Amino acid sequence: MLVAGKNYQSIWVDGSDPSIVRVIDQQRLPFFFETRELRSVDDIYFAISDMTIRGAPLIGAAGAFGIYLATLEITPAVSPRLHLENASRYLISCRPTAVNLTHAVNYMMQGLKDVPAGSLSEVALKAAREICENEKENCRLIGKYGLPLLENLSKMKKGTPVNILTHCNAGWLACIDYGTVTAPVYLAHMAGIPLHVWVDETRPRNQGARLTAWELEQAGVPYTLIADNTGGHLMQHGMVDIVLVGCDRASVKGDVANKIGTYLKALAAKDNGIPFYAALPSTSIDINISDAFSEIPVEERDPEEVTSVSGITGGEMASVRICPEKTRAVNYGFDITPARLISGLITEKGIIKPEESEINRLFSQIK
Amino acid sequence: MLVAGKNYQSIWVDGSDPSIVRVIDQQRLPFFFETRELRSVDDIYFAISDMTIRGAPLIGAAGAFGIYLATLEITPAVSPRLHLENASRYLISCRPTAVNLTHAVNYMMQGLKDVPAGSLSEVALKAAREICENEKENCRLIGKYGLPLLENLSKMKKGTPVNILTHCNAGWLACIDYGTVTAPVYLAHMAGIPLHVWVDETRPRNQGARLTAWELEQAGVPYTLIADNTGGHLMQHGMVDIVLVGCDRASVKGDVANKIGTYLKALAAKDNGIPFYAALPSTSIDINISDAFSEIPVEERDPEEVTSVSGITGGEMASVRICPEKTRAVNYGFDITPARLISGLITEKGIIKPEESEINRLFSQIK
Repeated sequence: MLVAGKNYQSIWVDGSDPSIVRVIDQQRLPFFFETRELRSVDDIYFAISDMTIRGAPLIGAAGAFGIYLATLEITPAVSPRLHLENASRYLISCRPTAVNLTHAVNYMMQGLKDVPAGSLSEVALKAAREICENEKENCRLIGKYGLPLLENLSKMKKGTPVNILTHCNAGWLACIDYGTVTAPVYLAHMAGIPLHVWVDETRPRNQGARLTAWELEQAGVPYTLIADNTGGHLMQHGMVDIVLVGCDRASVKGDVANKIGTYLKALAAKDNGIPFYAALPSTSIDINISDAFSEIPVEERDPEEVTSVSGITGGEMASVRICPEKTRAVNYGFDITPARLISGLITEKGIIKPEESEINRLFSQIK
Repeated sequence: MLVAGKNYQSIWVDGSDPSIVRVIDQQRLPFFFETRELRSVDDIYFAISDMTIRGAPLIGAAGAFGIYLATLEITPAVSPRLHLENASRYLISCRPTAVNLTHAVNYMMQGLKDVPAGSLSEVALKAAREICENEKENCRLIGKYGLPLLENLSKMKKGTPVNILTHCNAGWLACIDYGTVTAPVYLAHMAGIPLHVWVDETRPRNQGARLTAWELEQAGVPYTLIADNTGGHLMQHGMVDIVLVGCDRASVKGDVANKIGTYLKALAAKDNGIPFYAALPSTSIDINISDAFSEIPVEERDPEEVTSVSGITGGEMASVRICPEKTRAVNYGFDITPARLISGLITEKGIIKPEESEINRLFSQIK
């Protein structure tokens, strides 16, 4: 996507030095647009854990590039196989909820299995780039299949803007390009369909206020920022036509783990008869998970993300504490939205119902 | 309630100068405990509108003291009646959603109707103090009637802590003393019942993080701060036994207007079979309102409360912007929770079902 007229992806290999992986620093957005150099497996690990980069498809790609960087770290003193296996375990441990990281790292390791030591880096780089291209293509297709939903709503609304509510950031920053939720939104906007996005700020880390707002601003899509508490009121008053959210991991039954608070919006959508869709590449579906509630690990993050808020003041980023000094907080990163609240899953193979038979059919097409 | 060993109410008349109304500055809590002097109708108006004071019962009492201060502003040049009528309209216009302000101001005006000019201040002060005493007594009784709910849950949980989730601040700061939601909580805590409160931070103004957390901290009640997005996840995992919220205005049908986001928690409570109670004095019920959705005005506040967050850093209060500079936001203050999602209303006359017949019966007892 374009940033100030220049085309960017959320991760790429440096054009002049292929030992450097570059990413957009999502901790500094929307206040500063900066890129970071990642030169080692450690760099990838910390960029994911401190959320310099985030979003299920992007951390999958970053994990793949992590394996590529691991191949560059191989020295005569270490067993290449052992080194890569350690790196893969380390990278996978970084964020437990999204399955893309595991998928991508395992795909890389599988692809490197029979590769001679001298060719590991070359093959790994090619495979990591393939993962990026595949995720881009997935998003492009999610856009293609999601677009008719917005076109139909626009027809029903006779040209008045279609109001979309979204939670967190499932935009191109979270993916490699286009985004999942944003792919149909950008396509509809480019096709001249009038639309408007309600952007949940998405506490505690405010990915909505910071990243989705920034993306939509760059793309010229009309949007309004709201507190996470507001969506129910808007839905009660006919001010939301569709809810579109991303996904960190879906079970084979179509239950969706996504950013904490997604479940509350799904309940409100159901209560008000509003369609609720999750947009996700099939790489976010974990067909090994049957019971999402007991089997998908929900990451618990630093309580300080709850007790304080970061933003900008006087041209500098700063953090303010919002509660008494001794206040204890907990910080669950995700919740599970049960399939019964979901109208459909928008995938790169089309829109499917959140049901085991449909998901198995989808995977039989892929394999 | 005690603050650092000294007993406070949230509003009172200065002991040495009865022309001064004093309040605790809720904009500075929990970082600084300071009181403010209110010396005029204007002072009351701005203290309510900038949320130096907030909470339905407290702004009712403040409105009553506003009429008292208006009697002190009467000069020979003005008609006492006209002056008081202008003051009452002005005060009522200050916050549209809570009905207590209208109730209290109208009660004062009714009481002053036949009072000679020379006695207006004396009678007004007495009436405003009566309103305070009544609201204190209401909260005490809400505590008495709400306590058995917590006692019963404690028995069911065999002494493991009862987990209460609350939204916004319906504590003594919002009332005159004791609070509505907090009255049974404080009574249960003093009775040695093990309990723990999940405190929603309550964006955009963070009354939970700032005021409820501070109150519970002062009272020694165990609590944990959470992002507003978190309650659904906790309820799905059996970590909430009861939801207790306040109320800014209830309709005669038992629909409850309360801080924005309350509706989302009620949906999650219903979906998980968790009891959901609103605690409110009968002064918060508006029997003239039949359709809460169309008839209760929902205050729309400054969007800057959404685009920025205030807190403390380096010992000073500060505000940080959390989104791009040009981001548009909307800021609805309240939402309506339909009666069908509410287990009961805890009032000063006992717990009633949120139904028209029960509410009419309650009012026939009062009158």
